[in-house]
Amino acid sequence: MIEVDVEEAYLLLHPRPVVLVVSLREGDSPNVMACSWITPVSEEPPYIALAMWRENYSYQLIMRNKEFTVNIPGCEHVNQVWIAGTRSGRKVDKAKILGFKFIKSSKLKTPYIDGCLAYLGCRLDKTVDIGEISLMIAEIVEAKARKDLLVRGKWNLKKAKVLQHLGGKVFTYSEKTLWPSK
Amino acid sequence: MIEVDVEEAYLLLHPRPVVLVVSLREGDSPNVMACSWITPVSEEPPYIALAMWRENYSYQLIMRNKEFTVNIPGCEHVNQVWIAGTRSGRKVDKAKILGFKFIKSSKLKTPYIDGCLAYLGCRLDKTVDIGEISLMIAEIVEAKARKDLLVRGKWNLKKAKVLQHLGGKVFTYSEKTLWPSK
Repeated sequence: MIEVDVEEAYLLLHPRPVVLVVSLREGDSPNVMACSWITPVSEEPPYIALAMWRENYSYQLIMRNKEFTVNIPGCEHVNQVWIAGTRSGRKVDKAKILGFKFIKSSKLKTPYIDGCLAYLGCRLDKTVDIGEISLMIAEIVEAKARKDLLVRGKWNLKKAKVLQHLGGKVFTYSEKTLWPSK
Repeated sequence: MIEVDVEEAYLLLHPRPVVLVVSLREGDSPNVMACSWITPVSEEPPYIALAMWRENYSYQLIMRNKEFTVNIPGCEHVNQVWIAGTRSGRKVDKAKILGFKFIKSSKLKTPYIDGCLAYLGCRLDKTVDIGEISLMIAEIVEAKARKDLLVRGKWNLKKAKVLQHLGGKVFTYSEKTLWPSK
């Protein structure tokens, strides 16, 4: 893992992945959810926004702790992403079911999921309610990525299989690159 | 083109594309910008959020007209997306430079770009300022997509080459699909 300048961390969200969001339960054990409705918002200061149903257990946890981590999975995590996205951590210890190990953040109490492609440590700044959803706007305070998968701050798509959500139970990933000719 | 239920229109933003945002200049001629920092926010009511620099000409236009259209390009539009994303429409008529033709929306004054893969007609609801950026939160009031490119509301990636931004001058697209086994 290398440290990534937080002002260049938005590149880790291109192409735009499904992510695993970790938040802390009571007793500081981690909870995991999947989220595809996340976008970079600002490069400097580095901010992201993610949309979350206010009934979600993770919403409650993040509102209490004001922090969470964004973990970018690869295609090898598709089963875990599916389970994280379809079960609630309110009654079960999802982290245990998913078999995840965690690694410490140096800036936050909330840990990262070992084995992901990249990590963003986020502090909640504010929320905007839209219907039953809350848009959570957060500052990226720490970013790390697997060094062997990056080329000049961008994913090397020949090596990094960044998992994306197509809809329902279908996922995808990008392999080929193209450039404008002008 | 088929009409898409606005509450299923978020699927048109998966995998997460770079989009062309059309807004109206004075005299109602269209302006075009490229944007990759867009996300679905809510399914019902159907909302999206997109991040825009407040210095952008499009920001001014959207703040005045309170509406815009989101046009989802394919890989064949990579040159136009690049130009739309790197030049300002403040001094030049970008729509003319880009050679775009437009088609009318039935719900908005702002038109769509002919030849795109899908269209979302959006009414601005509110904005949230973050640094020099404004997060524009808008309701999807109309959605259309090319019927031949969809399978049960999702993109058929064997046919639809939905353009995605990797960073800088590099673009990508998704072709292959995968499913969780559990």
